Amino acid sequence: MATCAVYTTPSLHSCSITIPAKTSSGFHRRQVIVFTSKRITERGGRRTSEVSCSAEEAKTVVIGLAADSGCGKSTFMRRLTSVFGGAAEPPKGGNPDSNTLISDTTTVICLDDYHSLDRTGRKEKGVTALDPRANNFDLMFEQVKALKHGVAVDKPIYNHVTGLLDPPELIRPPKILVIEGLHPMFDPRVRQLLDFSIYLDISNEVKFAWKIQRDMAERGHSLESIKASIEARKPDFDAYIDPQKQHADAVIEVLPTQLIPGDNEGKVLRVRLIMKEGLQHFSPVYLFDEGSTISWIPCGRKLTCSYPGINFAYGPDTYYSNEVSVLEMDGQFDRLDELIYVESHLSNLSTKFYGEVTQQLLKHSDFPGSNNGTGLFQTIVGLKIRDLYEQIVAERAAAVAEAAKV
Amino acid sequence: MATCAVYTTPSLHSCSITIPAKTSSGFHRRQVIVFTSKRITERGGRRTSEVSCSAEEAKTVVIGLAADSGCGKSTFMRRLTSVFGGAAEPPKGGNPDSNTLISDTTTVICLDDYHSLDRTGRKEKGVTALDPRANNFDLMFEQVKALKHGVAVDKPIYNHVTGLLDPPELIRPPKILVIEGLHPMFDPRVRQLLDFSIYLDISNEVKFAWKIQRDMAERGHSLESIKASIEARKPDFDAYIDPQKQHADAVIEVLPTQLIPGDNEGKVLRVRLIMKEGLQHFSPVYLFDEGSTISWIPCGRKLTCSYPGINFAYGPDTYYSNEVSVLEMDGQFDRLDELIYVESHLSNLSTKFYGEVTQQLLKHSDFPGSNNGTGLFQTIVGLKIRDLYEQIVAERAAAVAEAAKV
Repeated sequence: MATCAVYTTPSLHSCSITIPAKTSSGFHRRQVIVFTSKRITERGGRRTSEVSCSAEEAKTVVIGLAADSGCGKSTFMRRLTSVFGGAAEPPKGGNPDSNTLISDTTTVICLDDYHSLDRTGRKEKGVTALDPRANNFDLMFEQVKALKHGVAVDKPIYNHVTGLLDPPELIRPPKILVIEGLHPMFDPRVRQLLDFSIYLDISNEVKFAWKIQRDMAERGHSLESIKASIEARKPDFDAYIDPQKQHADAVIEVLPTQLIPGDNEGKVLRVRLIMKEGLQHFSPVYLFDEGSTISWIPCGRKLTCSYPGINFAYGPDTYYSNEVSVLEMDGQFDRLDELIYVESHLSNLSTKFYGEVTQQLLKHSDFPGSNNGTGLFQTIVGLKIRDLYEQIVAERAAAVAEAAKV
Repeated sequence: MATCAVYTTPSLHSCSITIPAKTSSGFHRRQVIVFTSKRITERGGRRTSEVSCSAEEAKTVVIGLAADSGCGKSTFMRRLTSVFGGAAEPPKGGNPDSNTLISDTTTVICLDDYHSLDRTGRKEKGVTALDPRANNFDLMFEQVKALKHGVAVDKPIYNHVTGLLDPPELIRPPKILVIEGLHPMFDPRVRQLLDFSIYLDISNEVKFAWKIQRDMAERGHSLESIKASIEARKPDFDAYIDPQKQHADAVIEVLPTQLIPGDNEGKVLRVRLIMKEGLQHFSPVYLFDEGSTISWIPCGRKLTCSYPGINFAYGPDTYYSNEVSVLEMDGQFDRLDELIYVESHLSNLSTKFYGEVTQQLLKHSDFPGSNNGTGLFQTIVGLKIRDLYEQIVAERAAAVAEAAKV
């Protein structure tokens, strides 16, 4: 790390860091120039300023999204990139089996690309893709770190069709980098690079209902084989994936509804958005009265809803010893007026205009979960990430302007 | 009833009604002059107005308050008159055992004064004071009607000390007449005279706990004798008093707390304010979102409360086939900040300035129930009655002004 301290000089200062071109870790030569005003103090009536230039200085905002396979990460990513205004598409002219999605502002990389063992290798060693031993966390850390600091990388591609590792693709540093997959918060070094982290926590009952719907109804698998595949996956999932949620800044929990006694179809869902308190660029959404405990059935005199209705809950709680706020929605929206009514009673949404949440959900009404808490909370988290990004950018701009003045 | 219809004349019209002086029903000679614009229509481009002058025209706003003996009616009355700004006192220079309370705006008469049988008479006939046969509803109706129309009456006095009927006292028509007692909504004719009616509904568990506290701890009665007296009273109470609550515009239900499992001490209370919907001069208080169903624990990050905390609930309901809104408070206030915090989250309170509910409760912190839902809801009902009174007066003034213009 290179640091320069400067006292009351009129000119701008810069420091450049050179990273070797095309290393084995896949880095690209790039000059990094950073100005950051760290401290301004009065020394005998004279303003002094310390400007530090550091390779540690971030340029890209990095978001981590963890969830099991097939649990809605890609829908979430499409909602997130939509909030930023552009459509996310695979890299143009590259490997057609690339897992990457790129929009104007955002690049989403799939952490399966850091598998150190391909399908055959995993079979031979008897490890699942969930097992850390099947993943290269050193490379994941180095490449995410490089991207965060504005350095392009040659990222491997795990081909989900062939089960093999394909030749790498060039990833340029975006404004927002999303790393999504099984292990974004597993390695402490990678975790430290995240500006915000989300865990999609699908309860076993709902996971089972979803798998039955997809694998049995659509792919003709037997109930027994579905049960067996879930059971086989469970030990590694519980050991390596699930514990990451304690590190997440936001958790979206998906549970069976409580509105229909004994329901296990997984069609009507109870969804909880667990938001960490005390973060610098993230203030939790709340319902009516911040920090109190509330339950709310919006359906009543002003709003009528069909069976089984809609229930909201909000309140403070603790989650793995962290102070959190929890917003919960049970049930689903039938009509637009229900959605806008609910939006109008939520606060701290980080929308840019009245009805933006509703607009986003309507725009993508074909995405799974657009009529329930998964879609609502994914959209809200997308808006909060946009807000977080804008806060970080504004702070950097202010720091640069401050440094320029000095 | 005398009615005069007038069409587009420039002068004011009046009609006078003469009631015989000092009748056996205790009426005083009084001239009643009323102008009311009943209808304004366009007739061939000419504005026309029908002015009716009628002995039916009300001058005094009449409020009915029903409850069992010893259930907080007098505290409620003191809160109500305080909202109007004056202190309520017995008539000056009159019978020291008078049950009447008079303030600048309000006269409270106790319906026990309409007992047709004194204590001995009731004993002889084997009827309780709860029995309609022990009460003179004809006289009650005629005198309340006279007062409502601006005519003074000589009202009997039931002496609670001697159990005898004392010579009557003169009651002049006030701005607001409150008739409080066992039967304000029993007789359909009296009920029709009420501009607003309230029923204080103390649950048997709480009534029992209160009686134990008062009669056992303070007066040395035995538990058995208290139980026996409640049991003896119950059939007539259930037959004649309790059914009146179906006619009430507002009911204050007092129940044991649900915050302390198994509690039957009657110290911590759950109090429900049941408010009829669709009334002309009364719009129910609500919490956060009018017409939806809400539960709210205000104690949390912003407000800390001691055990067992405070729970609020709000929502639409039906009560004896009437559409109502119900506001509920379980628990009690320990400190001023809890009270003002709760007040700031209630809407439609009809306060004249921020914090008026809190100010009223603090002013009378020595009254029973000032720290729980009984005091809170009695104060709120007082404010709603002031609002109702002001609306009625404003409408009358507007009608008179309109009639004067024509």
